[in-house]
Amino acid sequence: MYCISVNYKNSDVNIRKKLAFSENVQKEFLTELINGKTVSECVILCTCNRTELYFCGNEDSLNTAQNLLSNYSGIECDLLKKHLYLFYSDKAVMHLFRVVSGIESMVIGEDEILGQIKLAYTMAKDLGMTGYELNMTFQSAMACAKKIKTQTALSKTSVSTATLAGNEIAHFKDKVNVLVIGATGKIGTVLVKNLLSHKNVSVIATSRKHSAESVQTKANITIANYADRYSYMDSADCVVSATASPHYTVTYYDLKKNIKTDKPRLFIDLAVPPDIDGSVAEIKGLKLIGIDYFEKLAKNNNELKLDSVESAKEIIKEESDVLKKDIAFHFFLPHMESVKNKLSENSLEEILYKFKAELPSEEFIKILDAFKSCGEKI
Amino acid sequence: MYCISVNYKNSDVNIRKKLAFSENVQKEFLTELINGKTVSECVILCTCNRTELYFCGNEDSLNTAQNLLSNYSGIECDLLKKHLYLFYSDKAVMHLFRVVSGIESMVIGEDEILGQIKLAYTMAKDLGMTGYELNMTFQSAMACAKKIKTQTALSKTSVSTATLAGNEIAHFKDKVNVLVIGATGKIGTVLVKNLLSHKNVSVIATSRKHSAESVQTKANITIANYADRYSYMDSADCVVSATASPHYTVTYYDLKKNIKTDKPRLFIDLAVPPDIDGSVAEIKGLKLIGIDYFEKLAKNNNELKLDSVESAKEIIKEESDVLKKDIAFHFFLPHMESVKNKLSENSLEEILYKFKAELPSEEFIKILDAFKSCGEKI
Repeated sequence: MYCISVNYKNSDVNIRKKLAFSENVQKEFLTELINGKTVSECVILCTCNRTELYFCGNEDSLNTAQNLLSNYSGIECDLLKKHLYLFYSDKAVMHLFRVVSGIESMVIGEDEILGQIKLAYTMAKDLGMTGYELNMTFQSAMACAKKIKTQTALSKTSVSTATLAGNEIAHFKDKVNVLVIGATGKIGTVLVKNLLSHKNVSVIATSRKHSAESVQTKANITIANYADRYSYMDSADCVVSATASPHYTVTYYDLKKNIKTDKPRLFIDLAVPPDIDGSVAEIKGLKLIGIDYFEKLAKNNNELKLDSVESAKEIIKEESDVLKKDIAFHFFLPHMESVKNKLSENSLEEILYKFKAELPSEEFIKILDAFKSCGEKI
Repeated sequence: MYCISVNYKNSDVNIRKKLAFSENVQKEFLTELINGKTVSECVILCTCNRTELYFCGNEDSLNTAQNLLSNYSGIECDLLKKHLYLFYSDKAVMHLFRVVSGIESMVIGEDEILGQIKLAYTMAKDLGMTGYELNMTFQSAMACAKKIKTQTALSKTSVSTATLAGNEIAHFKDKVNVLVIGATGKIGTVLVKNLLSHKNVSVIATSRKHSAESVQTKANITIANYADRYSYMDSADCVVSATASPHYTVTYYDLKKNIKTDKPRLFIDLAVPPDIDGSVAEIKGLKLIGIDYFEKLAKNNNELKLDSVESAKEIIKEESDVLKKDIAFHFFLPHMESVKNKLSENSLEEILYKFKAELPSEEFIKILDAFKSCGEKI
């Protein structure tokens, strides 16, 4: 198996976008590739971060594939060759296993890629473009990714402060009303995006700008004027502030004045310097969490993630090893009868003397080692 | 097999001389090395250009050998390690083959090394320090060196002007009287040394210095005063001049006056500017050869030698390959019965499934390849 990979590590978006074929173009590409007769099986994967072509074929297949990628992308072939990684045999297998498990992703451990690969493989399979080798390889790789997801913390561990804060908020209650102060800032934007991915969260976002386009078009979100922020605080279950303001956006006095009940409230301050007056923690039912908490959590999670990557690599090594043995054995099977006949017709001495006379030392020694294993390990 | 080599390529003479053990010390060294129990076989070679230790042993043997070399040489072990090449297994075999054939020598193709290795091996063998592996290896290596000597021009091809001139002179007649003018100069010294290595040559050497120590002590040599040179020319069969003088050392007029017969005479001029007046070639029976002739010959020989080195490497590759197969087969033989039993007790499928379950993919694939070879190549 070969793999040609153009990805965010070796190519910028201007190269990658030319290779981000639509589904119809991908189908056309695979069909033309197979029709060239040098390629026997192929799968193409196009995401915004990578275009990868996995294929099996004869010694001309690599050239065929590169030329066709050049034709379809309009990238001159020599330039394309500078922007791709090329993997062959065991290394191609390893690469697929790493990609599908999220180790090669920009955000390590993200699991969107597994779904994308499943779609890519299914499309090729439905077109009849896959055979024994790619079927085995993709199925093993996807099973391995699921095993990694289950057995390690790789895809469960976030290292982003905004994501961690989002998770904290979403788990605060069954349904959470959140007021986000500073929703158009750097952290605020990511936080709002994350909050909206939780179905139990609805967001009121304040902005100093009148038209907060970046958040306005989303569902489950209400835009409020910054000056009116206190009027939303009583009904909110959670208030997050992440502005670049040098002053408090939430003071004890104004808050106390505006809230009517002592229901459980979660206040999160993601700003440096702090946006929320620390005294608000004295208010009954109110829990205040600062940015330090999330930064420490992110740091711990980063260590956990590095450990998880190591565990994932171990799992990949084991699973890909089983796959390689299966494939090798599959391709050995047609030789079985002939080998058995030769072993029954000739004494072992005769066989070895013939090998000794005909083979160079490296091959002869491998054969002796193989037979020695029969004596020792069976 | 291991080889530890300290040679002119990695160490200067100050290091090498500390490792140039006398024969008695070599014997003592080998005995102590074997008595340490980690080394099972060993041979030591000490020449002025290299000290090399070849040995077989367990995983501690390398440390034992290095420490003992350090003790015997008085070179601190860390320093010694910086000054040695270490070869193991196939690479150690290849190194011995290259050394014994003269490819690793300072003067490529010199064959003194073959005799030195034969002595080193014989000494170790007589002490009972060698076993199957070193006996096979040294005997093959020496046989290979002889084959190279016979089948290539490697050791027959000189690239030194002085040596080529010396050979020309020695082959001029059955017994040759030579007058060397300028015997203490750079070329003269080498020439005289070469001439004295031919048994049929006697030398009269002139020198401007009164005491020409560098040549005086040799047999077959008479020292003459430069001013008297013409008085020796009639009896000389050959006259060589190699001085740095800006004037002719041999003029037509003076020569003509001093020679009485027109017997065959060989005059060789190795000086730049020329020492011998070109007109002497007009004298009947006299053949004059200039330095250009030898320089051209040396250049041709150098090309021939480079070709010969390539041929020698080919022969080494073939011969060492045979050796490696012999050794591998020798060490396989004790396993033969057990392998045969396993092959008769189990079906090939059973054997392969067991291997598949127990071995990592690389080993399993090697075994499949070995059995596939039985089907295809027997």
